[in-house]
Amino acid sequence: MKRVYINDVAARDGFQIEPRWIETRDKIAFIDRLSATGLAKIEVTSFTSPKAIPNLADAAEVMRGIQRAPDVDYVVLVPNVKGVERALAAGAGELNFVMSASDSHGRANLGMTAAESLDRFAAMAAVARAGNARINAAISTAFGCPFAGAVPVEQVMAIVARIETLGIASVMLCDTTGMANPLQTAALCEAVLTRHPRLQLTLHLHDTRGMGLANALAAWQVGVQHFDAALGGLGGCPYAPGASGNICTEDLVHMFACMGVTTGVDLDALLAASQALPALIGHDTPGQVVKAGKADRRYPLPAAVG
Amino acid sequence: MKRVYINDVAARDGFQIEPRWIETRDKIAFIDRLSATGLAKIEVTSFTSPKAIPNLADAAEVMRGIQRAPDVDYVVLVPNVKGVERALAAGAGELNFVMSASDSHGRANLGMTAAESLDRFAAMAAVARAGNARINAAISTAFGCPFAGAVPVEQVMAIVARIETLGIASVMLCDTTGMANPLQTAALCEAVLTRHPRLQLTLHLHDTRGMGLANALAAWQVGVQHFDAALGGLGGCPYAPGASGNICTEDLVHMFACMGVTTGVDLDALLAASQALPALIGHDTPGQVVKAGKADRRYPLPAAVG
Repeated sequence: MKRVYINDVAARDGFQIEPRWIETRDKIAFIDRLSATGLAKIEVTSFTSPKAIPNLADAAEVMRGIQRAPDVDYVVLVPNVKGVERALAAGAGELNFVMSASDSHGRANLGMTAAESLDRFAAMAAVARAGNARINAAISTAFGCPFAGAVPVEQVMAIVARIETLGIASVMLCDTTGMANPLQTAALCEAVLTRHPRLQLTLHLHDTRGMGLANALAAWQVGVQHFDAALGGLGGCPYAPGASGNICTEDLVHMFACMGVTTGVDLDALLAASQALPALIGHDTPGQVVKAGKADRRYPLPAAVG
Repeated sequence: MKRVYINDVAARDGFQIEPRWIETRDKIAFIDRLSATGLAKIEVTSFTSPKAIPNLADAAEVMRGIQRAPDVDYVVLVPNVKGVERALAAGAGELNFVMSASDSHGRANLGMTAAESLDRFAAMAAVARAGNARINAAISTAFGCPFAGAVPVEQVMAIVARIETLGIASVMLCDTTGMANPLQTAALCEAVLTRHPRLQLTLHLHDTRGMGLANALAAWQVGVQHFDAALGGLGGCPYAPGASGNICTEDLVHMFACMGVTTGVDLDALLAASQALPALIGHDTPGQVVKAGKADRRYPLPAAVG
């Protein structure tokens, strides 16, 4: 019964696609509230071009404005050397580098192939290390590409191996558009854990096709201990209107809690934070436990029954 | 990679709680459409009191009106001897008996304890056998009761043993309000499969707290091959507004298909039937694959990318 570590990415992967601007002070208050829930890590923002992601144009102010809790890691997404420099200047101590396993997706999303991304990672890593920042390397479309289809396991494994040779100690497999199934998830995660026992592996799942928690279960069964998730199940795929986004943090924590797996998270505090989301973003969220209550919720007997 | 058998319960567990009356001819057309998709079984209706479930007041007309496909089993729910007689008169060949593992839930929902239900099953089974009908015994709240909380495994196992002594060859464990977690699901299913190898075991899951497909995965891993599910994820819990209902048939079939597990179901035909649901019931459904498309769906590259 290995314990798990939960990273919330709602403030980055969720907020970046919200149609409505979220005030900087509201972002900071949201992150500060999450900091008190026992999460292992919070993805705070993204130091990308404000033109590409206007909703996160206040990245530096948010990073500087949050109160950092001692037991929580705060990470920011950085797409290039300039992003690394901006993040370091704003006091970021941990950086998510992002690339795509699929060249089609990489070109569409980042303007470069996987090989070009890996070259860029080397330059970014040098700057990050000079600034004493920790690095995670995230591999998008590791379980399939919405343009190219299946991504061969060995293609992903070669990228993981190259990342390790760059001296990066933490890798993330991302099911960017919810294409992974449980057997595939277990197989790829087991391959990485077995062949790269010194890498820290994080799994970033989306629930686009309803398989998110089943995939998390399958990954946990083979030993994955680090999971990204977004409060309320925010995030999502611009190609699938109405489809779910990231796996929902509180639903994931609830499942592990029901299973007796330690998460370190105060689920009630997390649910309270999730209940405040609709007022912040202006719409309902896909999270289930926030609507149904925890599995141990009791209802009064109907009045007609003695 | 044991194959699975999928039973759709939307016409019963789904339609029974819809706020809007569904015309008898529409119910019949819906079931006839499902009959062509390769499902193993369809729960057609319920021979309960029309006062208790007005939406299924046309049970006999629906049962008589459908076209029965040779490879599909058609089952109806019956609460008592009178229901068995009405179902047999309408030509039903397979009957679902229903009871609750929890006395609190049994009293609230059926007006009797588990022991009283089992006594009733004996009388109902005699009438059903005289009419040459097959019998499944469904155990509600097998994974927890919304009034009483946890239901001890041995309490459920004693009920299963008693059902087998009644000469009933098929038992269903129901997670009536979505309280089950994957470890619990696997443990109880494995106990039934191991101790009662000659009973056919079906699992009836709800997705109330988002764990539905994870529970199905965990059950499949220990050898469960028969699953109830509702097209579009219809159904639900009157106590949790906004919460999901039964696990979604097409999302379940899609997950197994992605895993390479044979279901016998034509997923495209199932998805087409699901797309027709909102027009039938007057609202959107919680199903995910119908919104996002199958995992192998390809998108054109954005125009800016070569």
